[in-house]
Amino acid sequence: MPLFYSPDLKDISTRINITGSEYHHLKTSLRKHEGDQISITNGNGILAKGRINKILPNHISVQIDTTTSIEKSKPYISIAFSLLKKNNELIVEKCTELGIYEFFPFISERTVKKSISLNQLDRLRKVAISAMKQCDSVYLPEIHNPLQISELLKQIHNNYNMILAWEEEQNTPLHTILKKAKKDICLIVGPEGGFEENEVTLAKEYGSQIVSLGNHILRAETAAITACAQAIFYQLKQNPEYY
Amino acid sequence: MPLFYSPDLKDISTRINITGSEYHHLKTSLRKHEGDQISITNGNGILAKGRINKILPNHISVQIDTTTSIEKSKPYISIAFSLLKKNNELIVEKCTELGIYEFFPFISERTVKKSISLNQLDRLRKVAISAMKQCDSVYLPEIHNPLQISELLKQIHNNYNMILAWEEEQNTPLHTILKKAKKDICLIVGPEGGFEENEVTLAKEYGSQIVSLGNHILRAETAAITACAQAIFYQLKQNPEYY
Repeated sequence: MPLFYSPDLKDISTRINITGSEYHHLKTSLRKHEGDQISITNGNGILAKGRINKILPNHISVQIDTTTSIEKSKPYISIAFSLLKKNNELIVEKCTELGIYEFFPFISERTVKKSISLNQLDRLRKVAISAMKQCDSVYLPEIHNPLQISELLKQIHNNYNMILAWEEEQNTPLHTILKKAKKDICLIVGPEGGFEENEVTLAKEYGSQIVSLGNHILRAETAAITACAQAIFYQLKQNPEYY
Repeated sequence: MPLFYSPDLKDISTRINITGSEYHHLKTSLRKHEGDQISITNGNGILAKGRINKILPNHISVQIDTTTSIEKSKPYISIAFSLLKKNNELIVEKCTELGIYEFFPFISERTVKKSISLNQLDRLRKVAISAMKQCDSVYLPEIHNPLQISELLKQIHNNYNMILAWEEEQNTPLHTILKKAKKDICLIVGPEGGFEENEVTLAKEYGSQIVSLGNHILRAETAAITACAQAIFYQLKQNPEYY
């Protein structure tokens, strides 16, 4: 049953209107009809099943039959990544599929792409919605506005166990640090040219642990996806139900 | 120092000629000159450092100064993946970066792309060379010609611990099987629409273990990259030097 996104859905909803791009997807791409069954999520843990009640010129009204609430497992895993020249969408798509909680794009010394337009940011959010739907997930990760790395570290260091992947760190594999994490986790990966040493020092001063992702140099986007896949693998070992 | 690929390099080489696309890359894209230092690998564990001796109209002659041999860690990790409509290159690129040993593309019941042209296969091999060079790796994974899944299972089952990722398997996380692997590992991931049940049964008959990659449904290419990242993460935990 195809999954749709409606941020207005609540666990007490009995009827919901689907509008905008989701409306067009349902009506034009999937050619759904009145009476067809669909699933809807609000991207925040609620999953509803229902039937299309009416297809109108600018919205579809859906009758909700059942609603369930699915809890996201702790610790949440988020990722802070340097804006890349290309491949920001790849990071968002793949890490959303994996179940990442939040994205913190940032700009550091060697970041080539020093800003992102509102359109590009909107496009990243659409990629996340699409990945969530495609993978039958009910959590839509938040994609924050980009910050300078120093500002980001300042903002998040109290609430996260920050784990920064650095190609020059050789003695601390990721698993040794995941073991010690007591709060939600924020993985941090740098730009195409890597972090400057003073950025790594600053991250340490804010309490970040510095880790290695292994003995191969990885492209920036591969490091991001790999760090997430490995952090989730670790959680699955502690809790096979980890979602 | 940029890394180049020359399959002719041997550990006793004192001089080597670089030809073909590597020649053009060196001369035209990187504009290297006589006397410049470069690294060369044969893609099979040999790493040489040397200096450009002569730039000629169709080859570059390199004087080798030092040669080292880097051993690939056991168990080797390989991946068998269904040919995908798109994203075959993404799988090859990301898994080469991660250090995968061999690729076995295959065709199964729900594979949409039932064949691959020699050109496309050649393109995949070029993607692997480029990923190896970019990541300063000295092992070029072999990309085999595609086979039917049944033929593939028959050919590889004696030499590999086969581990097949299936979205309908919920009770066996990957780590429980990695723990038991005694031979080299071949991870197996299916096409966009997943495996048919009879294919999973056949894989089991050939001794394959069936595992879950977690509680989110992953796109086919994400499953491939994730399985490799997680299998390598596991090896790094056993052996921090795993390469």
